[in-house]
Amino acid sequence: MIHKTAIVSEKAKIGNDVKIGAFTTIYDNVIIEDNTEVGPYCELGVESTFSEGLPLHIGHDSLIRSHSIFYEGSSIGNRLRTGHRVIVRELSIIGEHFHLGTLSDIQGHCRIGNYVRTHSNVHIGQNTVIGNYVWIFPYTVFTNDPHPPSATQRGVIVEDYAVIATMCVILPGVKIGRCSLVGAHSLVKRDVDPKTIVVGSPAKPVGPTSKIKLLDNTEKSAYPWTKHYHKGYSQNDIYRWINENND
Amino acid sequence: MIHKTAIVSEKAKIGNDVKIGAFTTIYDNVIIEDNTEVGPYCELGVESTFSEGLPLHIGHDSLIRSHSIFYEGSSIGNRLRTGHRVIVRELSIIGEHFHLGTLSDIQGHCRIGNYVRTHSNVHIGQNTVIGNYVWIFPYTVFTNDPHPPSATQRGVIVEDYAVIATMCVILPGVKIGRCSLVGAHSLVKRDVDPKTIVVGSPAKPVGPTSKIKLLDNTEKSAYPWTKHYHKGYSQNDIYRWINENND
Amino acid sequence: MIHKTAIVSEKAKIGNDVKIGAFTTIYDNVIIEDNTEVGPYCELGVESTFSEGLPLHIGHDSLIRSHSIFYEGSSIGNRLRTGHRVIVRELSIIGEHFHLGTLSDIQGHCRIGNYVRTHSNVHIGQNTVIGNYVWIFPYTVFTNDPHPPSATQRGVIVEDYAVIATMCVILPGVKIGRCSLVGAHSLVKRDVDPKTIVVGSPAKPVGPTSKIKLLDNTEKSAYPWTKHYHKGYSQNDIYRWINENND
Repeated sequence: MIHKTAIVSEKAKIGNDVKIGAFTTIYDNVIIEDNTEVGPYCELGVESTFSEGLPLHIGHDSLIRSHSIFYEGSSIGNRLRTGHRVIVRELSIIGEHFHLGTLSDIQGHCRIGNYVRTHSNVHIGQNTVIGNYVWIFPYTVFTNDPHPPSATQRGVIVEDYAVIATMCVILPGVKIGRCSLVGAHSLVKRDVDPKTIVVGSPAKPVGPTSKIKLLDNTEKSAYPWTKHYHKGYSQNDIYRWINENND
Repeated sequence: MIHKTAIVSEKAKIGNDVKIGAFTTIYDNVIIEDNTEVGPYCELGVESTFSEGLPLHIGHDSLIRSHSIFYEGSSIGNRLRTGHRVIVRELSIIGEHFHLGTLSDIQGHCRIGNYVRTHSNVHIGQNTVIGNYVWIFPYTVFTNDPHPPSATQRGVIVEDYAVIATMCVILPGVKIGRCSLVGAHSLVKRDVDPKTIVVGSPAKPVGPTSKIKLLDNTEKSAYPWTKHYHKGYSQNDIYRWINENND
Repeated sequence: MIHKTAIVSEKAKIGNDVKIGAFTTIYDNVIIEDNTEVGPYCELGVESTFSEGLPLHIGHDSLIRSHSIFYEGSSIGNRLRTGHRVIVRELSIIGEHFHLGTLSDIQGHCRIGNYVRTHSNVHIGQNTVIGNYVWIFPYTVFTNDPHPPSATQRGVIVEDYAVIATMCVILPGVKIGRCSLVGAHSLVKRDVDPKTIVVGSPAKPVGPTSKIKLLDNTEKSAYPWTKHYHKGYSQNDIYRWINENND
């Protein structure tokens, strides 16, 4: 299960049925739970002076694809699934069923809930706080410094079920409201109200998310997306989403 | 020709005069034609449940630079040339003389013609269709989901000789017309007519491509670019481009 | 100090107390000065037909993080510090105390001064010229071709103390003036005057940088940033910045 070319510290705590790929390095301060697969060319548990001695903790039934880097001092829940070449730095607490797209970069000191999914090349600045069931699409950046460079940090806050489309910049301290939608190529300077669409540079509200219709000729609204998109979610969640009047 | 640290499956079909770099992994379901060079730290033929059992096929006289990842189930024509850290996922059919820039990411299920060139950090979503002699510049993203997240996919279509400049987002299902030019930092929501310049967020037409002049004091138009830029193209193409009235 | 899995050419000139990580490759034409650390999975001194036979030169007391690639023919001053997966191509001359963020890509043929800092995913096109004490934030691209594709190159020029925020595109040949600020998500088509803020797509001047106040209730201006941000700079610089009337 551990490739002969992998370098695995004897101090690392490796669960049962963990697979570790060729040329991968597992450093000392790492806990990997059962039934997780770590692809080739990865580094897990990179030392950091900011990690406060905390280990890297990877939950069970996870898949970390090749060329990925995780620092010590972060904890990721069960059923993590990454693309290739992701980075997660120190002191982030991340929930279960997290999907992190290829080349995405979590700068550390973040709080991320359950069932969050990012696509490729998402850059999440330090001190970002993300709720549950959030979607973030490629080449989106969450910033944190209101007058760069400075020692001040105001992390972005994203509430549950929000969707942020491709190539957006979210400015420091902005709150993206529950079930809202940020359109592609937007610069978000102000808080986004729940269930609201914002678009543009700078982004402005253009109406409720409910006005976007599915393209399947049903005339149903595409949002909340929980009404029609269920791939990979639990039966409990799906049941709730279908039967609730609203999210 | 095969570095002693490389891991090459006995099942892979490796042509003559193929060079494989240090720490590179070649999996089972791979065909590499003659005279191709694969740099160090690459993975070729990554397994995928979506590959339908098809092999990765790399044409002859190709150069894959280091840290690149190719899945099984895609076919790339002769004289491929990549930057570093590219990714090509499954079930894409790509023509000859393809140049794929550093950190570019082809998500799979794409059709790409001959002599297409992307610069660095180009992200090509699933189901994109690209013609021949197309240019795509850094940090441009082709999307495919009209109301994300959803199960609906409408790939971008790019016609021959089109040029898409730096950091553009092309929205799902948009057609970029033959010989058109998308200016830098544009968000393209609507189809772009042939030989037309569009710019802005959202992008709007601002005139024919012929109005952009070369900066060499000749007063000649910079488009079609085939009239003045010939590096790496065949003598036949160059002859045709110079002598035709138009492309 | 040199990991047993590293591949280090006997021709490379390696100083004292240099640490080289696992699976890293150091090619022939490389000079690494004393007390430098090169992380795992790096490639230093990649051969290039454009390097004019010049070596890669890395100054003393540097830190190159894992998965980074440097070509031969570039020279970087002392106390370089990179993130992960950076690329520096050939024939760039870079000063001391350079910080290059994760996934940043310097395309070569650039001139970069002292104490320049880039954050993640900064793409610096060929022939860019950057002064001293410049800051560049994530996902910013410096272009160089005024009518792509062409053989014409006009590099961007950035003067001392300028700050370029997240996800900007700087068009070819543009000069970013001393102590100016380019706001996030801007497309810069025209020269930026010193001490001026520009924002938007296309970017327009919106006032002097002095009008942006610190968020710490002091009512002091956030620019020039040298008045309040001193992390990692020399005592001489800090003393000068505090005591000068202006930068």
